[in-house]
Amino acid sequence: MAVEVDSDNLARVINALVSYELDALVCSLPSHVLLLTGYEPVIGNAVAVFTQRGGVHLLVPEDEAEMAAETSYANQLTFRPRSLNAITDSNQSVALPLLQLLKKLGLERSQLGLEMYGLQHPASYLSQHRYGDSLQSLIADEFRSIRLLSADQLLQRLCAVKTKPQIDGLRISCDLAGMAFKQAARSWQIGMTEPEVANVFQSAYGRVTAERNISRTQAQFFCMSGENAGKANAAFAMTRQRVIRQGDTVLIHCNSNVNGYWTGITRTYIRGERSLKHRQMVDAIANARSAGLDAIAPGVAASEVDMAARTLLTNRGFGDLYTHATGHGVGFGPANSNAFPRIHPKSPDVLEAGMTFTLQPAIYLGDLGGMRHCDVVAVTGTGVDILTDFQSPETDR
Amino acid sequence: MAVEVDSDNLARVINALVSYELDALVCSLPSHVLLLTGYEPVIGNAVAVFTQRGGVHLLVPEDEAEMAAETSYANQLTFRPRSLNAITDSNQSVALPLLQLLKKLGLERSQLGLEMYGLQHPASYLSQHRYGDSLQSLIADEFRSIRLLSADQLLQRLCAVKTKPQIDGLRISCDLAGMAFKQAARSWQIGMTEPEVANVFQSAYGRVTAERNISRTQAQFFCMSGENAGKANAAFAMTRQRVIRQGDTVLIHCNSNVNGYWTGITRTYIRGERSLKHRQMVDAIANARSAGLDAIAPGVAASEVDMAARTLLTNRGFGDLYTHATGHGVGFGPANSNAFPRIHPKSPDVLEAGMTFTLQPAIYLGDLGGMRHCDVVAVTGTGVDILTDFQSPETDR
Repeated sequence: MAVEVDSDNLARVINALVSYELDALVCSLPSHVLLLTGYEPVIGNAVAVFTQRGGVHLLVPEDEAEMAAETSYANQLTFRPRSLNAITDSNQSVALPLLQLLKKLGLERSQLGLEMYGLQHPASYLSQHRYGDSLQSLIADEFRSIRLLSADQLLQRLCAVKTKPQIDGLRISCDLAGMAFKQAARSWQIGMTEPEVANVFQSAYGRVTAERNISRTQAQFFCMSGENAGKANAAFAMTRQRVIRQGDTVLIHCNSNVNGYWTGITRTYIRGERSLKHRQMVDAIANARSAGLDAIAPGVAASEVDMAARTLLTNRGFGDLYTHATGHGVGFGPANSNAFPRIHPKSPDVLEAGMTFTLQPAIYLGDLGGMRHCDVVAVTGTGVDILTDFQSPETDR
Repeated sequence: MAVEVDSDNLARVINALVSYELDALVCSLPSHVLLLTGYEPVIGNAVAVFTQRGGVHLLVPEDEAEMAAETSYANQLTFRPRSLNAITDSNQSVALPLLQLLKKLGLERSQLGLEMYGLQHPASYLSQHRYGDSLQSLIADEFRSIRLLSADQLLQRLCAVKTKPQIDGLRISCDLAGMAFKQAARSWQIGMTEPEVANVFQSAYGRVTAERNISRTQAQFFCMSGENAGKANAAFAMTRQRVIRQGDTVLIHCNSNVNGYWTGITRTYIRGERSLKHRQMVDAIANARSAGLDAIAPGVAASEVDMAARTLLTNRGFGDLYTHATGHGVGFGPANSNAFPRIHPKSPDVLEAGMTFTLQPAIYLGDLGGMRHCDVVAVTGTGVDILTDFQSPETDR
């Protein structure tokens, strides 16, 4: 069964190659291979070659060939990374097929765009191959007339705006995570430790995806409560050993992925009597969220969305406790605060229809707790589509 | 509380630097930072600098400083990757502190070892920073008299042999996974789907680690049954949608990590009536395992261990169905078939005390099922220490 070509995506990539004066892209980071071919590689040794003429090629290890054909519209060529007859690695086994492909495509004297500089990227599998300098060295040694250029900025820009099929992929991922949130929100109990609570959500996600025959999925749920919620503004989430008590803020953060489309979702729960402070926080965050959502439309500066949410929190007296940006691009990766569009006070980015990002107003009180509400949203032709438009039963009361 | 220095590790790294004629190492892959400092970074933007004089330095993002101090004996310097006053990324924010540190250490005219070429490495977190070429460019641009060399082989060799504290770390990780296997082996049922069975094991691991206050841990359990077990010889494990029936081979594979020490463990279960073929397979694998274990000792060729297991399976008529190598290095990563020592027919590696690797005799029958028993073992002064010496109740009958 042939996979339908995402022709909007093809056109977008071709336009980008033209405007960056590149004849082709050679990419191996799984999120970029997904962007270029519709398939997210598992262990990271597949290589995508996308030419300005619109040729989409995927060098895929034979183990992944069948799976790749299920979602990718690329021309597939397989290679064999392992053998009992010799010790080989992916750098070596991809070399010949890649060089042959570049020749066949007439790219011996071209300008090629490669992934070069550092960036934050998602883990497609628990163990991944990264080519590092290998592909550059390989190509430079073979073709003296090829110019190798960094395609990093071009790729970042392409990842920021999604086509309808890509947004649909992200929506499925968000819906499944949302179902797990809604199921698990009823099941965790006071007296559990953070890992126990996280496990309730994790298990719910496992059930939700199992019932729906979703194979290519990963999710990680984190629980941060009380003083741990108060320091949940770190660059990573982490479940610790604290026991949940009545009146604690209980922050549940999820990053999940279906077929390579990543979510970032946070809800905060409180059981039992709420302090006045907690009620003020809940109200301020709900209003900051609404203010942020109201600001979203094509053509709007990303910094204005940040400012809308930040101003509301500042006016309620929580400005100094809102220590991070209001959001960042999401979808081809879960948690890269530098992904376009950056919803940050100093952001130069301008919103476009098809951009997807997180919107995450928050208040961090340190030892007194913390609260965050993180949605995934998409910019539409006229406003915003909330892909995680479910409420947690408790903060919603 | 100061962390005790792993002085054996210090001596080993210094010796390696001397023999490779490097003045220092500059590393950022989390497994290498763990090797050099005792701390596994979370999001991957920490940088370790280890000098031939024995200075161990860790540039760590401020979010991770407290956690790093819990397990690392390095001199810590913090940097700040994010700010509301400017949009910065880790490449930029680490630049100044790294260059200053290299100057302070008198390395302006040195030979530095860096990670350069491609390799398979573990995912320390679901979203990770990778510096790519950034550190090389940064250092080369600032210090024209520094020579940058690949430290990849040196690092691979260092990762292969572990000190006692490192093996103890891996042992803890194996013990916790083993407890989850033993608990969950009793709880899954015929009629469940593969994701449901995997979830039983995953939840058991969540409980086991929660009860023991283990925070820095990840685990992924995979279930492959029947024809899916028959193709479990791929370079990755994958849970699919099959319903488990009586008499199926049910292969459970786990990669888990505690404080950065990774396991790779497989057990195969059969419920209900066993076919003659399945009984022959169970017996052949048990004997291939014993033959492999018996062959392990310092000074022995890694290929001999492979041959011992392979010969037994061949004599029982399963040789052609044993399609992969008998094992590979494990501990600083979960599933890199090129990690030293490679227990492969063509391996040039020789076992040394302190090496840790997987031992994974297997039989893949395609549609008729598959069976694997994968242990983590350590080479001792005289023989072998099995870090995963638990049996699954069913294959043990």
